[in-house]
Amino acid sequence: MTLENEEGQAPQGSDPAVAEMEDRLLRVAADFDNFKKRAARERNEYIALANERLLKELLPILDDLERALDAVGQHEEATVEEGVRLVHRSLAALLERNGVREIATEGKFDPHVHEALLSQPSEAEEGSVIDVVQKGYTLGDRVVRPARVVIASAPESDG
Amino acid sequence: MTLENEEGQAPQGSDPAVAEMEDRLLRVAADFDNFKKRAARERNEYIALANERLLKELLPILDDLERALDAVGQHEEATVEEGVRLVHRSLAALLERNGVREIATEGKFDPHVHEALLSQPSEAEEGSVIDVVQKGYTLGDRVVRPARVVIASAPESDG
Repeated sequence: MTLENEEGQAPQGSDPAVAEMEDRLLRVAADFDNFKKRAARERNEYIALANERLLKELLPILDDLERALDAVGQHEEATVEEGVRLVHRSLAALLERNGVREIATEGKFDPHVHEALLSQPSEAEEGSVIDVVQKGYTLGDRVVRPARVVIASAPESDG
Repeated sequence: MTLENEEGQAPQGSDPAVAEMEDRLLRVAADFDNFKKRAARERNEYIALANERLLKELLPILDDLERALDAVGQHEEATVEEGVRLVHRSLAALLERNGVREIATEGKFDPHVHEALLSQPSEAEEGSVIDVVQKGYTLGDRVVRPARVVIASAPESDG
């Protein structure tokens, strides 16, 4: 067969070069297919694992809250207050460790990170933030929650 | 050039069938490569998004904790206690919503989900759980944290 082909007109697909190419093409296509399936599986696993890590970090905070709750039941005020401080510190540290940052509210209103709830006549510079109703937070480049603020309008004239 | 090749000895790679195969192979390889790059990028985005959703859910809990902390500073005991109950309820609900379940500790010791810290002579059935030092939790099929327990050994004989 091989000798005949070298002399005669090689039909498409039985030329050794074509056959080799076809073989490589099939293998690359099969690898691609396997990769796609594995990628889909891994994506779900990564999401589950990412969540698991965070959820696991919350368990000691739940433990501390349950201890504070027991102290509430037993009217141990000092223990309750200590518990609140501890839980707050732990949760704030967890958020910080995971890249959550508080949005600054000093100075001028910034529509990218602030949400103006209302404006009030004020001696402060017009358009500056004069009160924070709810703190805002970023995660990396993203605003997870804008800071909800009150901004200064011009002072009311007495005349 | 093309006409000459059709008559003469076609060098490998300029045979139209081989050239077409090579072309397809290159395209599949390029698609594969692009897919791999996109998959890696998407994986990181999915992890970031999964985390972002959870971190965002924690912000109202942090708000409530800060209100409780203010009440601590102002010695408003009733508000502090109410705050602890509220924060505990919210965090427990968040964990529940995200698939975290408390591990049952009634009855027999189960090495798959329990960790025995010590055994104590007890009237209870030997090998049963008699105390829980730290609650355990599962997430789906996985043990996020085993329940740390005390198990019953045979009662000490008086003789």
